[in-house]
Amino acid sequence: MKVFVLLFDDFTALDVFGPVEALSSLEGADIRFVSQNGGTVENHQGLKIVTEKLGELPDDAVLLIPGGFGTRNAVNDEAFIDAVRKAAGEAKYVLTVCTGSALLAKTGLLDGRKATGNKTAFDWTRSCGENVLWQREPRWVSDGRYYISAGVSAGIDMALGFIEDLYGSDEAERIANRMEYHRNRNREKDIF
Amino acid sequence: MKVFVLLFDDFTALDVFGPVEALSSLEGADIRFVSQNGGTVENHQGLKIVTEKLGELPDDAVLLIPGGFGTRNAVNDEAFIDAVRKAAGEAKYVLTVCTGSALLAKTGLLDGRKATGNKTAFDWTRSCGENVLWQREPRWVSDGRYYISAGVSAGIDMALGFIEDLYGSDEAERIANRMEYHRNRNREKDIF
Repeated sequence: MKVFVLLFDDFTALDVFGPVEALSSLEGADIRFVSQNGGTVENHQGLKIVTEKLGELPDDAVLLIPGGFGTRNAVNDEAFIDAVRKAAGEAKYVLTVCTGSALLAKTGLLDGRKATGNKTAFDWTRSCGENVLWQREPRWVSDGRYYISAGVSAGIDMALGFIEDLYGSDEAERIANRMEYHRNRNREKDIF
Repeated sequence: MKVFVLLFDDFTALDVFGPVEALSSLEGADIRFVSQNGGTVENHQGLKIVTEKLGELPDDAVLLIPGGFGTRNAVNDEAFIDAVRKAAGEAKYVLTVCTGSALLAKTGLLDGRKATGNKTAFDWTRSCGENVLWQREPRWVSDGRYYISAGVSAGIDMALGFIEDLYGSDEAERIANRMEYHRNRNREKDIF
């Protein structure tokens, strides 16, 4: 599996590294950290990650889009949203975590589809896509090739759910055990 | 709180970014990514992080040491273990995740203290410190200024437990809610 992680300034690190921990445990997984212009991407947690410039994605790509404070600016950056739309259009699967769903909603690709997002920022996220079928209660939702999780840690459960849908429950359990992660398997209803 | 995250090649990302997500949510938290020689640290998940060179830590520093495949080489790197010993000696608190406890055990600082580690690599971890009071069952243990967690995701529960010990349960709950993280509060016994 080729996973392209789309980073931008002020992304939330755990939105990325929960799912990356799960996905990178798949045999032959290839994780690529990319950004719109390449170079070093920074966040408010003091993190500086070296990225490749986002190019055309292969047909079998999985695109992972995190959230974070940076989404507040990024949803108004037309060139960035165009880049998200293009990459999401090329990928086989698109996974978003937390306010990453606001970015994807802004592209229009979620119109008429189920989606969720961070509980604290839910009303703002909803405002980024008026034609999206927003649901506040789920831990994550999938609709076609889109997997959309609630806030931060929910991305881990979504990634394991994605792995279960593609490769079966034994593989998802193997990886959760390796991560010593107590899974939340109920995607429909979260406690937050 | 000043948190110094000690990175080395082939560390496990979630060992770092689970605890960092919790600790960076504390008011005024300052997270610094450091390595023995500074520069870019890489891991098997395709990650490249820019780090500062490890220097003398301030009296109130919290040192976070992750695990990962890289610990297998690192425990035999005398200069690196010397650097871990010095930094851990300077810090006010030392937190390890997963096989990070093998690195700390190798310094001798855990001799006579309770510790745990990754379940899959437990026998190897134990071999890195024959005078450590190893416990296989806990999700995490604390002994004095040392907080030592089991594998990968257990670091999140340990970090929240550390925050609870220092700042109270309301603050730990606030942060877990912000992370939308289902806590495992039983530190004594894990399911893995």
